[in-house]
Amino acid sequence: MNAPLTPRTIRIHPSDNVVVVVNDGGLPAGTALPGGPTLVQAVPQGHKVALTDLPAGTEVRRYDVVIGHTAVDIPAGGWVNEQRLVMPGARSFDNLPAPQPPADLPPLDGFTFLGFRNADGSVGTRNLLAVTTTVQCVAGVLEFAVERIRKDLLPHYPNVDGVVGLTHSYGCGVAIDAPDAIIPIRTVRNLASNPNFGGEVMVLSLGCEKLQPERLFPANAIPIQASSDTRGTGSAGPQGVPPLSGGETQSGAGGSTVVLQEEKHVGFMSMIDSILTQAKTHLERLNARQRTTCPVSELVVGVQCGGSDAFSGVTANPAVGFATDLLVRAGATVMFSENTEVRDAVDQLTRRAATPEVADAIVRELAWYDAYLARGQADRSANTTPGNKKGGLSNIVEKAMGSIVKSGNGPIHGVIAPGEKVTQKGLIFAATPASDFICGTLQLAAGMNLHVFTTGRGTPYGLAECPVIKVATRNDLARRWHDLMDINAGRIASGEATIEELGWELFHRLLAVASGEKTWAERWGLHNDLVLFNPAPVT
Amino acid sequence: MNAPLTPRTIRIHPSDNVVVVVNDGGLPAGTALPGGPTLVQAVPQGHKVALTDLPAGTEVRRYDVVIGHTAVDIPAGGWVNEQRLVMPGARSFDNLPAPQPPADLPPLDGFTFLGFRNADGSVGTRNLLAVTTTVQCVAGVLEFAVERIRKDLLPHYPNVDGVVGLTHSYGCGVAIDAPDAIIPIRTVRNLASNPNFGGEVMVLSLGCEKLQPERLFPANAIPIQASSDTRGTGSAGPQGVPPLSGGETQSGAGGSTVVLQEEKHVGFMSMIDSILTQAKTHLERLNARQRTTCPVSELVVGVQCGGSDAFSGVTANPAVGFATDLLVRAGATVMFSENTEVRDAVDQLTRRAATPEVADAIVRELAWYDAYLARGQADRSANTTPGNKKGGLSNIVEKAMGSIVKSGNGPIHGVIAPGEKVTQKGLIFAATPASDFICGTLQLAAGMNLHVFTTGRGTPYGLAECPVIKVATRNDLARRWHDLMDINAGRIASGEATIEELGWELFHRLLAVASGEKTWAERWGLHNDLVLFNPAPVT
Ligand SMILES: [Ca+2]
Ligand SMILES: [Ca+2]
Ligand SMILES: [Ca+2]
Ligand SMILES: [Ca+2]
Ligand SMILES: [Ca+2]
Repeated sequence: MNAPLTPRTIRIHPSDNVVVVVNDGGLPAGTALPGGPTLVQAVPQGHKVALTDLPAGTEVRRYDVVIGHTAVDIPAGGWVNEQRLVMPGARSFDNLPAPQPPADLPPLDGFTFLGFRNADGSVGTRNLLAVTTTVQCVAGVLEFAVERIRKDLLPHYPNVDGVVGLTHSYGCGVAIDAPDAIIPIRTVRNLASNPNFGGEVMVLSLGCEKLQPERLFPANAIPIQASSDTRGTGSAGPQGVPPLSGGETQSGAGGSTVVLQEEKHVGFMSMIDSILTQAKTHLERLNARQRTTCPVSELVVGVQCGGSDAFSGVTANPAVGFATDLLVRAGATVMFSENTEVRDAVDQLTRRAATPEVADAIVRELAWYDAYLARGQADRSANTTPGNKKGGLSNIVEKAMGSIVKSGNGPIHGVIAPGEKVTQKGLIFAATPASDFICGTLQLAAGMNLHVFTTGRGTPYGLAECPVIKVATRNDLARRWHDLMDINAGRIASGEATIEELGWELFHRLLAVASGEKTWAERWGLHNDLVLFNPAPVT
Repeated sequence: MNAPLTPRTIRIHPSDNVVVVVNDGGLPAGTALPGGPTLVQAVPQGHKVALTDLPAGTEVRRYDVVIGHTAVDIPAGGWVNEQRLVMPGARSFDNLPAPQPPADLPPLDGFTFLGFRNADGSVGTRNLLAVTTTVQCVAGVLEFAVERIRKDLLPHYPNVDGVVGLTHSYGCGVAIDAPDAIIPIRTVRNLASNPNFGGEVMVLSLGCEKLQPERLFPANAIPIQASSDTRGTGSAGPQGVPPLSGGETQSGAGGSTVVLQEEKHVGFMSMIDSILTQAKTHLERLNARQRTTCPVSELVVGVQCGGSDAFSGVTANPAVGFATDLLVRAGATVMFSENTEVRDAVDQLTRRAATPEVADAIVRELAWYDAYLARGQADRSANTTPGNKKGGLSNIVEKAMGSIVKSGNGPIHGVIAPGEKVTQKGLIFAATPASDFICGTLQLAAGMNLHVFTTGRGTPYGLAECPVIKVATRNDLARRWHDLMDINAGRIASGEATIEELGWELFHRLLAVASGEKTWAERWGLHNDLVLFNPAPVT
């Protein structure tokens, strides 16, 4: 060694028998850990070191949880990695602990943000024109129209933050009457009413698709603004629009649905004109809106992780968990998700459930997902990636324990199924796949107006529909991706900040971004497509 | 009636007991059909009329096939629609006819087109730079880079037709070891070597994804051009590039893979610079290429229909079938697909199979698809859409008979499974879902360099990777969508052209488009995203 190295490690819980190496570049063989063993081999950053001799078959504990049994004898100071660890079986759903929820956290007052109030009571953090699509066929035409709206119309509506085509690969060529089709259908429906779209619902339909507009939006399901209805135009705020009366659909005369196959469309540009004309009506109302002071309780925050490493569970995710608690204390809604990353902590979840009904709903969702994976001959262990393992996460149990800390320490107040809208305040388990864009899409459908995304390996994740605050788990990533990562939680590992300090920093940043401050993804215009969760067959 | 109406109907086969109304707007009650009954009620365009009394339980024949049994008594001149027809069960796979293939059609000589010859022997109809992605996470960054390439680089490479990001929603957050994962993986792999990309394979990877570049492209699976290898730069044509040797992957030094998480990337623009630098290497080689005269046998044509109506099976699809026969006679490869639309004609297919192996492969693919649908509690009848029914197609059996005529009259020479590459000439059953963009994506992966798409209701379908010739089934659609539809097969119904004439017209248009003539979708820049077929779970 050329320079003297100060070895740094993290032990999560006093009863853990492994620690994680913090130093950039890892630690070489022969390094004496402070108050611990000397490394018998080099151990990479983020990876685990045995604190005592662990003969084959020994329980390996991290987060005070058994993350596996040693497959071979590992001496004190030895490297504990995925090849030397046998993963435990999935926790049975039988005999789960009954709810013993922690007390509700003390209220947190005095924080506000500047948001766009909607007629339905929700609040947007952005003021976007969204165009819902019933079917993938219209996506090319919509892309053309969105480009025109962006160039020709938006400059005249300076209070509007942007235009978003809600394109997806659903709507036709799918088994729309299969039982699981309810998931993609309600996802598309609920996406349309995300708070960041100001209550304006504009729909683009082909005409012959399976997912007809009246099936997507049954009467009374969602208010659709009739284009002939000019209430709200030029006024200071959006207007409440009553649901359509029974039987009527928004594709009728005056509805805000553009149908490409309608007789009146002669020539491609007539389709574009129809879309632009309709867009103007919505843009006028959106443009009349202003940000107003709103309590933190109007935030609906989705937390997620992706490209995780062993630091995720000790830096970024605990800081997010601290911010989750702050948000919940301030009355906000916070959703945590990612079924396969909470599956192995199901006993922690049922214990934290606010009521027996919540505990039952948690088990219902995770059992459904187990069955869904089994149908495709997979299980929860399909979650981990090469990057996770390279980053020190040996298996899904270890990954799950590091993932679930994003949910903080409070009771779990509610559960929603994939694609459902959240209607409660507090901490919510929004059951979704862990897949980054599927999870993000489902959280958007649930009503998310602010997104927190932690990453250890690094991903340029972004969504056009909602600001995404990206949190790096490591200094090295934050340094290299300085103009992609919004917050650096690596400072926790290097001792420059505590979890509490970072949690508060994230909380303040969330309020600033909710009030209009741009994230890095927004500054670069980086975003990924929506991805629907469709467990039903295509045809 | 104000104007005298000349009733027009179409009877497909002499033994059919229904005819289809051709007139725009349908025919009113009291209309006397020439040589047939008088309508007892109004019948819409594209819908069926009973030629004789059909008491409840009578077989209804169209295409000389039983498309159902009458559910009620239908008098001669009555409307036969989906509510009055009971669909037959799916044909069992037992006791299917053994192959009795028609003789190979006589060769057709003397036709050529101007294409781009590739080192592997394939021929492109376009000269595109394609960027393959291993994972959805990189899509936002790629979109940013593609925009730069389009604006800043392409003007310097006038022989290059465009740049295409092969983005998709696969690569991570998926059960990549599930048995069915082979389908999306080989699809992404084979897409990269579509003939329209000139043999240049450029890959964008995140770094930590499940679908690692070396898993996507195992050594020896596909030649990857090393960026340090400048053979071919400035020369008149592309150079053959040997496969990587065993164990080596293209993500190593000098490979044509850009990995966003690599240490060298500091700041977002360094990622964009890496992509643009790599792109230039490929663009230089692509730009050196010229179109040369190629035999028709180098065409790999995918035929498909979408937004079908009752005319699809009597105008556009038979014309396509005629062109299919011409192409096969000239030595080309023609793929027909859409499992649920051939399922009810499985006995016709096994009879047409060139060999028993081909017949077995047809049954293997359709049986696998039956099981796939059943797993999601669906069956082939999930295929039909509201638009199909409105357009006169009562059920999937009737739709299938009209769909399968796109395959012409020759023997079936081969079968490929979803995502596989076609390696044979002749008529190929490429087993795919009927879902428009999934079918198109799989045909692209199979090596399609020209696409024919027929539509009755109308869809603005387009692909960025390959020209799509759209054929309208009806005059009315062709009139209204005059700048979206490339060919009007409605003239067959109105008696202005025969199936043969239209088939030849389509054949000539195919050669012109293959040689560089732009389709309407290309002129407007309309295209839809790729959609992968992933029957395995997400995680
Ligand atoms: Ca995660
Ligand atoms: Ca995730
Ligand atoms: Ca897209
Ligand atoms: Ca079709
Ligand atoms: Ca189709």
